[in-house]
Amino acid sequence: MDGADNTLSRADLEGLSAAEVRQVIRDGRWTGTSKRHALGREQANIVILREEYALDFMRFCQRNPKPLFLIEATDTGNPEPKMSAPGADIRTDVPAYRVYRDGKAVEDLTDIRHLWRDDHVAFLTGCNLSVDQVMIEAEIPLPHLISEPVWPSQYVSNIACQPAGIFNGPQVVSMRPIPKDLLVKVIELTSRFPRSHGGPLHVGDPAAIGIDDLDNVTWGKPNLVGRGQVPAFWACGITAQAVACEIGIPEMITHKPGHMFVTDLAVVDPVR
Amino acid sequence: MDGADNTLSRADLEGLSAAEVRQVIRDGRWTGTSKRHALGREQANIVILREEYALDFMRFCQRNPKPLFLIEATDTGNPEPKMSAPGADIRTDVPAYRVYRDGKAVEDLTDIRHLWRDDHVAFLTGCNLSVDQVMIEAEIPLPHLISEPVWPSQYVSNIACQPAGIFNGPQVVSMRPIPKDLLVKVIELTSRFPRSHGGPLHVGDPAAIGIDDLDNVTWGKPNLVGRGQVPAFWACGITAQAVACEIGIPEMITHKPGHMFVTDLAVVDPVR
Repeated sequence: MDGADNTLSRADLEGLSAAEVRQVIRDGRWTGTSKRHALGREQANIVILREEYALDFMRFCQRNPKPLFLIEATDTGNPEPKMSAPGADIRTDVPAYRVYRDGKAVEDLTDIRHLWRDDHVAFLTGCNLSVDQVMIEAEIPLPHLISEPVWPSQYVSNIACQPAGIFNGPQVVSMRPIPKDLLVKVIELTSRFPRSHGGPLHVGDPAAIGIDDLDNVTWGKPNLVGRGQVPAFWACGITAQAVACEIGIPEMITHKPGHMFVTDLAVVDPVR
Repeated sequence: MDGADNTLSRADLEGLSAAEVRQVIRDGRWTGTSKRHALGREQANIVILREEYALDFMRFCQRNPKPLFLIEATDTGNPEPKMSAPGADIRTDVPAYRVYRDGKAVEDLTDIRHLWRDDHVAFLTGCNLSVDQVMIEAEIPLPHLISEPVWPSQYVSNIACQPAGIFNGPQVVSMRPIPKDLLVKVIELTSRFPRSHGGPLHVGDPAAIGIDDLDNVTWGKPNLVGRGQVPAFWACGITAQAVACEIGIPEMITHKPGHMFVTDLAVVDPVR
């Protein structure tokens, strides 16, 4: 029960509304991962940048919607994502943050009010955890939904992003082992949710996308690909953090991987 | 045959590739509307702004995807939409342009190279003409597909856009009369194409969205709503031009309504 207040379990947070989950987090009562939080609500990766980088980063998201589908960009200096989570505060409502300076992760925090600036813009991008409820309803046996300590495995692939301004780098992918007889169904299902990375980028051969050793994860935890299973790789929102490292951007504040922001958007709402 | 070179008919342009259509336009051989051009390819509304307005306009598009689904934003100063139409030149490849200054339409042109600046950003947003091929294949009898001089009727509605920075104003809608027994099918079909405005904003009662007189169009041409038909209203990309007028922006260069830019994107390609 990573980072949980001893009065709260992950099961407690499954059934809460998104606003209730955010309040629990704002109150400092949950600093763990957001797996299964407010099931059925869109979870988001967070990237906070100074406005001078905002137009290029927005073009970068627009050109790379598989890893970085843009759910919202806040008004400059305003920490409220008023479209997707009215009333929320992006500086306090994420379970944990990671601060990058000059392309290096320098600090993990649970509150960033002291770092917020009048020229900051917060970007919310899609996250695969959003479709967990869909996977549960469709009875897809994803390991991270079945076993508490398990987590999707995340790797830096050799698939390049489409650059925009200074933003350039490799796509990060998340791997889930899928039973072969469910593979088409999983591709069909995830393809319906382009906001949450859509269908996989690649299926089958890790080496084909530059991953030599599935045990050597960059984020998350290794997952065993068992007999009769195939590794499937989806684009991942941590791509923004890999890019921050690649280009050595002076400052980028993000969520800590796995510790997402929960929006009010229903995952089943159409993209529009 | 509005604006056609006498050696070319609209039927000639239906079967051309998007790149071929753009070359015909660049050569000055077609200055008419883009109806049925390169059928099956995504057509785009164009908005060109100085970079100082680009971040706010991009947030405006992101918050209003029904009228302004963002297909691409070019690099600042670069007139090539390299994601959706590599090799194209946004300054010459649109059949006709409209220039707004201080919120007023001041000039229509067929080439804007002399107006292009190093700090210009071009935005391409979705257009309903893109789904004409879908409608033809599905045998939906849309008047503008059946009769050459007919055009969808366009109105300023009382539905407000979500504001972003200085950008604020009403949504423009386009009306098509739909046979009642095909209405659900048309809604289902258009809902599959969120890049091209998706499903309608409203069906049935023009007055409910602020339209008192269907004969009084702002753009396009009046369409008769016959017996057994219902007026259906889709969000329209001309919204950007209505907003330019509303806020009196110093400069906005757009396509002339109905005279769209044809991208290489297949309309049936998934949004991703």
